[in-house]
Amino acid sequence: MYKAPVEEIIFTLGHVAGMNEAMAGGLLGDLDADMVEAILSEAGRFAGNEIAPLADVGDTEGARWVDGEVRLPEGWPQLYRDWAAGGWNGLTASEEFGGQGLPHMLNVATLEMWNSGSMAFALAPTLTMGAIEALSVHGSDDLKHRYLARMISGEWTGTMNLTEPHAGSDVGALKSRAERRDDGSYRIFGQKIFITWGEHDASANIIHLVLARLPDAPAGTRGISLFLVPKFLVGADGSLGERNDLFCHSLEHKLGIHGSPTCTMIYGDGRFGAEKGAVGWLIGEENKGLACMFTMMNNARLAVGMQGVAICEAATQKAVEFARERTQGRAPGTTASGMSPIIEHPDVARMLLTMKALTQGSRAIAYACAHAIDMSKRTTGADAKHWQDRAALLTPIAKSFATDCGVDVASLGIQVHGGMGFIEETGAARLLRDARIAPIYEGTNGIQAIDLVTRKLPLAEGDHVRGFLGELKAVAEDISRSGIDGFGETAKRLKAAIADLEAGTDWLLAEQATGRLSQALAGATPYQRLFGLVLTGAYLAKGGLADVADGAREKRVTLCRFAAENMLAETVALRDYVTNGAASLEAARIALF
Amino acid sequence: MYKAPVEEIIFTLGHVAGMNEAMAGGLLGDLDADMVEAILSEAGRFAGNEIAPLADVGDTEGARWVDGEVRLPEGWPQLYRDWAAGGWNGLTASEEFGGQGLPHMLNVATLEMWNSGSMAFALAPTLTMGAIEALSVHGSDDLKHRYLARMISGEWTGTMNLTEPHAGSDVGALKSRAERRDDGSYRIFGQKIFITWGEHDASANIIHLVLARLPDAPAGTRGISLFLVPKFLVGADGSLGERNDLFCHSLEHKLGIHGSPTCTMIYGDGRFGAEKGAVGWLIGEENKGLACMFTMMNNARLAVGMQGVAICEAATQKAVEFARERTQGRAPGTTASGMSPIIEHPDVARMLLTMKALTQGSRAIAYACAHAIDMSKRTTGADAKHWQDRAALLTPIAKSFATDCGVDVASLGIQVHGGMGFIEETGAARLLRDARIAPIYEGTNGIQAIDLVTRKLPLAEGDHVRGFLGELKAVAEDISRSGIDGFGETAKRLKAAIADLEAGTDWLLAEQATGRLSQALAGATPYQRLFGLVLTGAYLAKGGLADVADGAREKRVTLCRFAAENMLAETVALRDYVTNGAASLEAARIALF
Repeated sequence: MYKAPVEEIIFTLGHVAGMNEAMAGGLLGDLDADMVEAILSEAGRFAGNEIAPLADVGDTEGARWVDGEVRLPEGWPQLYRDWAAGGWNGLTASEEFGGQGLPHMLNVATLEMWNSGSMAFALAPTLTMGAIEALSVHGSDDLKHRYLARMISGEWTGTMNLTEPHAGSDVGALKSRAERRDDGSYRIFGQKIFITWGEHDASANIIHLVLARLPDAPAGTRGISLFLVPKFLVGADGSLGERNDLFCHSLEHKLGIHGSPTCTMIYGDGRFGAEKGAVGWLIGEENKGLACMFTMMNNARLAVGMQGVAICEAATQKAVEFARERTQGRAPGTTASGMSPIIEHPDVARMLLTMKALTQGSRAIAYACAHAIDMSKRTTGADAKHWQDRAALLTPIAKSFATDCGVDVASLGIQVHGGMGFIEETGAARLLRDARIAPIYEGTNGIQAIDLVTRKLPLAEGDHVRGFLGELKAVAEDISRSGIDGFGETAKRLKAAIADLEAGTDWLLAEQATGRLSQALAGATPYQRLFGLVLTGAYLAKGGLADVADGAREKRVTLCRFAAENMLAETVALRDYVTNGAASLEAARIALF
Repeated sequence: MYKAPVEEIIFTLGHVAGMNEAMAGGLLGDLDADMVEAILSEAGRFAGNEIAPLADVGDTEGARWVDGEVRLPEGWPQLYRDWAAGGWNGLTASEEFGGQGLPHMLNVATLEMWNSGSMAFALAPTLTMGAIEALSVHGSDDLKHRYLARMISGEWTGTMNLTEPHAGSDVGALKSRAERRDDGSYRIFGQKIFITWGEHDASANIIHLVLARLPDAPAGTRGISLFLVPKFLVGADGSLGERNDLFCHSLEHKLGIHGSPTCTMIYGDGRFGAEKGAVGWLIGEENKGLACMFTMMNNARLAVGMQGVAICEAATQKAVEFARERTQGRAPGTTASGMSPIIEHPDVARMLLTMKALTQGSRAIAYACAHAIDMSKRTTGADAKHWQDRAALLTPIAKSFATDCGVDVASLGIQVHGGMGFIEETGAARLLRDARIAPIYEGTNGIQAIDLVTRKLPLAEGDHVRGFLGELKAVAEDISRSGIDGFGETAKRLKAAIADLEAGTDWLLAEQATGRLSQALAGATPYQRLFGLVLTGAYLAKGGLADVADGAREKRVTLCRFAAENMLAETVALRDYVTNGAASLEAARIALF
């Protein structure tokens, strides 16, 4: 059973992602080490003792559709209410509406734990938090006063309604429509698919954020608007009124996250209410829905990255525990009698160390992204711009690298278990099934790569990413200077990997500068992995350099060395694909497809 | 729906794996191109039209346990009997017992197709064929005459009973026991787990091959014996007699291959028969069961490799079809109006081309392994030895590389489908669920790597593998000399990759020669992948060089170039892990575990 790695999480936040420095600099209010410890220990307790024990029933029972209503798995409605009662939903939300105004870093740390407990369960707050963010930034005062407090408390959950059958990655193709009414409200009509937690029985109301198109809207992404559409209308005093004209038509039968209802939602077909059309209110301006959507999505992208980290952690814990107990064969060089624990076999150790390194690397990347978000909100001027750019740069990497790692690590976890890994009761297989959606939703990892290459590398004319590379080089220099033997060839390997990343970066910027977008796009995915691997190496190194008790440091140093000498050489290949791969890809695409 | 790629299969057999040459040299009897075409076309028809349509019901309904009996999914018993009636089970079996005595190459080609249709279904013949092989090679005349004809016809199916709860990879740890009886028979007692198709309702009898230990047997693998234990006893005239004392206790609830019953079998608990104990007959000699088991397993290892190839093919077909039809966004440089088919986006094309290259590469490796098996049986003296060694060398690579590719390609297939890939009805997810067991059973891929490094590289004092590397270099030279522009940098890249493989090979041989087994084992898995990647590059090149119609050749050449310039550079990293990775792995293993 999952046990939250609270100590590791606090270490990564503090020594790798920058929280200790920010705290010492007074940028995080009155937050101190004791508070961090108290909050995260309690979150760890809840995730391990309350959520994780209900993960299996969530998977086997799943969410069930009954006549337009959705019943969550046994025990989940109460679990959700207990979780909300803990105040977890409003950790980072505005104090004006009952939130706690804490740094985003603490939120991603807790999100990781909820997701390790059960990714299907943690999707509820993930979506609600995205909706809260969009409403907080873009909503009118009236909407905020009517909805925010109850969403922040978790009494009401929120959703994001983007996807339609023919509008997935290409959200501009959506067809749902909105009509203006004289009272300033709108009526929404259309069908939305893949709506996570679109309907369920754990909260009194569900606040849908829905993208739709006005009759006179321009085509494409410049003509979509965002609307708040509650399941039950809400009076000025906050009381629940009539049922709105929307319902859940059906649930998807999915590979994983069975406890999370994935709904097809129908708006405005006249099932409820006197007049046809779901009543909605505009968020932000007409036809500017895309900006609001990105507010939700940026938040959600990092949150999905946390799902990847969370699966990595849960799968690694499970596999290590199994490999310590399972005995088979005799490990080379063993002097013990009888069969050896399989963890002593080099091949199994390689899998487990790879899993550990990817877990800690993807965690550090995601936390560093959260740190940048916090800093961007708690600094001003050029500093704020710097941290905005850093958050923007790290978001696609955090999302894609962590979710790819989630799939790979969960798959390795099954392999470590041998035949038992294929049996559902073991639980290793569920982690792979759950993990597999994360590289797809909130912008496929291919879309993240396009975003990284075309929008994030050019930030500050490329100076932002170049500055970041400089910071990574400094880490490698610190290792050279540290004189710690255990690092082995880490400094050399890390420097070579950073050089590969730099070469790839320069090439992609140059191609785009000369208008060869297609060339740049061809290399986007290998570049994204290249970036993630280099950051894994650099952040593991940063952790190894941190001045902590010797025993813990030795573990970090040896894991860092393992990654440097057994994982980082892949960067040579990735750089080659980025800078030399486009021509053969294009030739083969044309010849074969 | 899956459509068997008969033309591609015939091309790979003939031009890449060596069948045409063997046929021309008179080594394959009266087999000719027309026969090959006729046999494989009919197999393709059966796989596409009969098996594939029942794959989904097999998955959703699954095999069900009812009071010790197992019911296959709706339509499967008849499907199995129709399949057997086609004579497919005896394709390569001895003509003396009704088989057709055809080359093993044709069998793996058909196995690929059955598995692409439904891996769960194809497991029935896969296990039966392994049992036939063991019985043919090691069984007494009486056993052969009593059982072989009906197993070859497919009237009776066969199983392999190796695994016990504490004896998985370490088969020597098994505890099932056998007692001698005066009439020359034995009584078997014990519990076996993970027995594929151990009980079902498609055949009149089930012939279990069971490993067990005699009371006076030495410990470990030198004390296990193999027994034939039929579900129903068989009279001298072949008539079915009493029910034997064995039954299926339960079925596993698995991630995939739901249609294939995975049984816990109980032998000798007295449920059936007057005297306690399942009646069995010795196959081979007492305490020499391991040799018999390896006869079954070598056959089964290549057959499991075919599962990997088959999943690659099915997943690639499905993804290409989807990507041609699904439109989203606008591809860079497109001049068409409206949304582009996603196949035109470079990132999607990269995924699909990678899938295609891995499919064709793993297919070629597996077919080349089958070719070596055929040649070893149809040549004599030094030639036979040469081909035995080649088959021995290729078997672990064919098993591991193809099954790893199966998982990776199925996962990419889901990614290409976007959100639809996560919905079970699409069918892409089932392929990943099915694929995930193949790297585990019949010897985990880690065990394959140990076999490759410790038993296969040293064949002929390392001269066999060195000779093979020479053949691969000749292919690279042929490309240099071909003057075909479309190959781009293929020759250069392939030569570099072969040099990486050579360096890794030399290092592993030297480490073992100086007794550093642990060092060699640490690099076994990356070495195995290195070998598979190089063979993929070389066999794609061989295909591109084949003298066929220009249009088809251009496709092969461009795919080969894509692999050379977008996949092969990984060999630099793998070589580095093999030759430099052991120390950091060992240090981290000791520090962390």
